[in-house]
Amino acid sequence: MDSSPDSPRSYPRTERTTPTRARERAGYARELAHGILDDGYLCHLGYVRDGAPVVLPTLYARLGERLYLHGSTGSRAARTAAEEPVGLAVCVTVTHVDGLVLARSAFHHSVNYRSVVVHGVARPVTDPAEKRRALDVVVDQVLPGRAADCRPASARELAATALLALDLSEVSAKVRTGGPTDEPEDVALPHWSGVVPVRPGYGPPEPAGGEPTPDYLARLVGS
Amino acid sequence: MDSSPDSPRSYPRTERTTPTRARERAGYARELAHGILDDGYLCHLGYVRDGAPVVLPTLYARLGERLYLHGSTGSRAARTAAEEPVGLAVCVTVTHVDGLVLARSAFHHSVNYRSVVVHGVARPVTDPAEKRRALDVVVDQVLPGRAADCRPASARELAATALLALDLSEVSAKVRTGGPTDEPEDVALPHWSGVVPVRPGYGPPEPAGGEPTPDYLARLVGS
Repeated sequence: MDSSPDSPRSYPRTERTTPTRARERAGYARELAHGILDDGYLCHLGYVRDGAPVVLPTLYARLGERLYLHGSTGSRAARTAAEEPVGLAVCVTVTHVDGLVLARSAFHHSVNYRSVVVHGVARPVTDPAEKRRALDVVVDQVLPGRAADCRPASARELAATALLALDLSEVSAKVRTGGPTDEPEDVALPHWSGVVPVRPGYGPPEPAGGEPTPDYLARLVGS
Repeated sequence: MDSSPDSPRSYPRTERTTPTRARERAGYARELAHGILDDGYLCHLGYVRDGAPVVLPTLYARLGERLYLHGSTGSRAARTAAEEPVGLAVCVTVTHVDGLVLARSAFHHSVNYRSVVVHGVARPVTDPAEKRRALDVVVDQVLPGRAADCRPASARELAATALLALDLSEVSAKVRTGGPTDEPEDVALPHWSGVVPVRPGYGPPEPAGGEPTPDYLARLVGS
């Protein structure tokens, strides 16, 4: 994997995607960032309102080099984006915690994680065909295979759905893996040290109707 | 639980903590917000830098009506907070996904979640005693009981740790529970509908040394 910045396989590194610390954890490879984005469906969407930051949990999906952010036409982000002639300046962050890192010292405690930060300008999706496709990819991001097994949105429902599009151009990933980095003089201390893996999982589906569990759902909960 | 805004048991509702949609999901009870905050340890910290939003995953802990946000003295948020005479305007958001909500229509797909949004001004913790206590509560937020079973931070390590304090004064919670809300005319459609519970869990601890698994860790992974 070519992860050197500025190669076609990587996002160009900018001042604000260059961390001030733990630079060895940062990565710009598209493959790395795509993988982290594809492992989730909930991002934290940040924007500025009246000069102050706002961060809201938001469903998203990736389609190629674009993210779609899901909302309602009544949401503040969607309204603000619609009011801004050039779109809404946003920061979208996706984080997965993979493990708790217990060191022998309080200071060296950490978590293993994978995160992606996307800076850019989000624009409202207004074309009905793009909107319909975007809603489908959001549904499939949460549960792959589901979009083909539900009633598509009506024109009225599409009109009530707000989707923002955000191109992936200023993107960075950050990853921590591995065990604790104890100080040499701490290794003999009698405290347990190591990693506790964090594994998100699913409980048994709770059906609202009588239909049998579809394959795509069985695959999800069985994994 | 008294959840009426402006009661002593609730956070006062402000213009920016009043959602523009799904208001029935919003809550201001301190007990509700504390419970959601106490169920996590990773927040998404938003602030404004050069007029643009920045959202970073950040470890936190709650101590009474205050959050502590963990960073390094080299991090941009900590540096910016230290430069601002009155502190750094932030928005801190904590989100737990509890279930995937599969409706028979694409439009009514949703997730069950609990989230808290905190607006305020974060100030750097400079008092060494407060800093030490704050580092301990951050360690215990990730793994209750751990702070008492590791080497406390040295003066040098404390100096390299940045902690921001954020008082809980402008706070709102948002909660979705329950099954899908299908349109009456969709109920007969042959698509599986219901909820898939999302259950974060832990894998078997991976020790770096030979110490036996402590009780607080066995409790965590056994739960």
